[in-house]
Amino acid sequence: MASNEKTLTVVALGGNAILKPGQEGTAKQQIENVNETTKQLAKMVLSGEYKIVVSHGNGPQVGNLMLQNELAKEEVPSHPLDVCGAESQGFIGYMLSQSLDNVFNQNGRGDIPVSTVLTQTLIDGDDPAFDDPSKPVGPFYTEEAAEELQEEKGYNMIEDAGRGYRRVVPSPEPEAIVEKEPIRQLLAAHTVVIAAGGGGVPVVREGDRLVGREAVIDKDLETEQLAEDVGAEVLVILTDVENVYLNYNQPDQEALGRITVDEASDYLEEGHFARGSMKPKVKAGIEFVESGGKKAVITSLNKVLEALEGNTGTTITK
Amino acid sequence: MASNEKTLTVVALGGNAILKPGQEGTAKQQIENVNETTKQLAKMVLSGEYKIVVSHGNGPQVGNLMLQNELAKEEVPSHPLDVCGAESQGFIGYMLSQSLDNVFNQNGRGDIPVSTVLTQTLIDGDDPAFDDPSKPVGPFYTEEAAEELQEEKGYNMIEDAGRGYRRVVPSPEPEAIVEKEPIRQLLAAHTVVIAAGGGGVPVVREGDRLVGREAVIDKDLETEQLAEDVGAEVLVILTDVENVYLNYNQPDQEALGRITVDEASDYLEEGHFARGSMKPKVKAGIEFVESGGKKAVITSLNKVLEALEGNTGTTITK
Repeated sequence: MASNEKTLTVVALGGNAILKPGQEGTAKQQIENVNETTKQLAKMVLSGEYKIVVSHGNGPQVGNLMLQNELAKEEVPSHPLDVCGAESQGFIGYMLSQSLDNVFNQNGRGDIPVSTVLTQTLIDGDDPAFDDPSKPVGPFYTEEAAEELQEEKGYNMIEDAGRGYRRVVPSPEPEAIVEKEPIRQLLAAHTVVIAAGGGGVPVVREGDRLVGREAVIDKDLETEQLAEDVGAEVLVILTDVENVYLNYNQPDQEALGRITVDEASDYLEEGHFARGSMKPKVKAGIEFVESGGKKAVITSLNKVLEALEGNTGTTITK
Repeated sequence: MASNEKTLTVVALGGNAILKPGQEGTAKQQIENVNETTKQLAKMVLSGEYKIVVSHGNGPQVGNLMLQNELAKEEVPSHPLDVCGAESQGFIGYMLSQSLDNVFNQNGRGDIPVSTVLTQTLIDGDDPAFDDPSKPVGPFYTEEAAEELQEEKGYNMIEDAGRGYRRVVPSPEPEAIVEKEPIRQLLAAHTVVIAAGGGGVPVVREGDRLVGREAVIDKDLETEQLAEDVGAEVLVILTDVENVYLNYNQPDQEALGRITVDEASDYLEEGHFARGSMKPKVKAGIEFVESGGKKAVITSLNKVLEALEGNTGTTITK
């Protein structure tokens, strides 16, 4: 297949691709996880059928950075959330870049360039999410410490499931990827791109300037925006399960295979998909196909090629 | 001038471009400094004469990250130096990207793309620097704590000027920029690139894999390597002073203007330039011109255009 016929595909990694539940989060653990992840991603590229952009979450990594900032605050000025997000993009991008370089090299394709692009995401400063901060970030606090932070720094704090108090921040919708042009340039030159990590660093337009905001953009919706902005044909959202399910974890659970946008929208409205879990993935898939994308695939990492061939996973099409 | 005639120029920022001596190091301070810095850098691009890659140091930022890691180590697994370096590239790249976006936009050139590329630098695992770790990094420790780190983690610790004990790491020579191909692709498409921050993340080749190492590559030598690898015509190294001087800070101090590589080499051998300060800058300039670069310019940030026109600063040519 001629290289200019490769299918431009944006792939969102699930959280487990980098850090697994229960792991402490050493760099060594994360690098080992990433090495397994990139073996699967590389298959897409090595098949010769796809050129890819990879996005990823950053919840645990940013949580750890925020906790480090908190514990060291008497001696080191604490960074705001946008800066911690940028730092986590550096960390995770480094692991993914190096690991992809390695797997390509091990397959005799050390010539395939890989690049992590620090990504900012434009959001609307008037997004209604700013009136309703609801996304918990960072460490748990005692009630007393939470009240102090609320007074001193104006943080919004909530009690989280009896485990203590946490800061909540707005989760606005992505409007555009600031770095879409460089990402497009790299893809046109057949570089594998890592971008939009952790939903991108949220920035608002204030007059003629971009300014960072303390917020978290949903990783799946962000990846959808990226896919639109680079003109991708296919959006792949990876998660822990092989399919999207109706009545998930119920006796009458049903795996979804190939469904239309309309079917997906109906299921979404019927409340089949959990908030903060499958719901944003299905929503992202619908938005992508409605905006002109060819198909959105939701599946697990190790089934990605099979799912792209239509043999498993959930595929949303027009 | 046709855009394909622009002079490809690699610019190394000085430390003061991001954090000034005596500043505490809040994100706000650093962003304000960066906003002044990018006004000068943008002049080069807005003149229509240059396309640029910008590199930067990361000493204070990595130092703060290492101190945060140290102070939080009971609760958050500490990251090795290569990971802290990658995090600092994310942080500083974010500030520089956003600030350049803003200054271009304020000048009606919001169409100029800007991209920070996470950069790894290949070093030789047998570099003699590994037998002689000499670059101090991170926080100061008491003698007792230093001995503990030496035993527990095998760190090399030295006493630093009566201010306490510090870890020292190797400072090997850069051999190649891993991301040179994507950086070239972006430059070919007229994107302003931020790369090789903090000397790049040092990686060695182990069999068919790249692996990170705890080391620090000199920022100026790294920038020279970057300039070679992208085929730059001009290397600019920015610092606090307008020129390179003979007998610096002596009564017979003499500013150097246009000098040849041979003259520069003689002055270097005569010991005119301070280790860790002007010496690596002059060395980088010599290496660049000897490797085929047209000229290397050493000057201060606010004189950069004048110096490129040959009206101030120190210029090294064949």
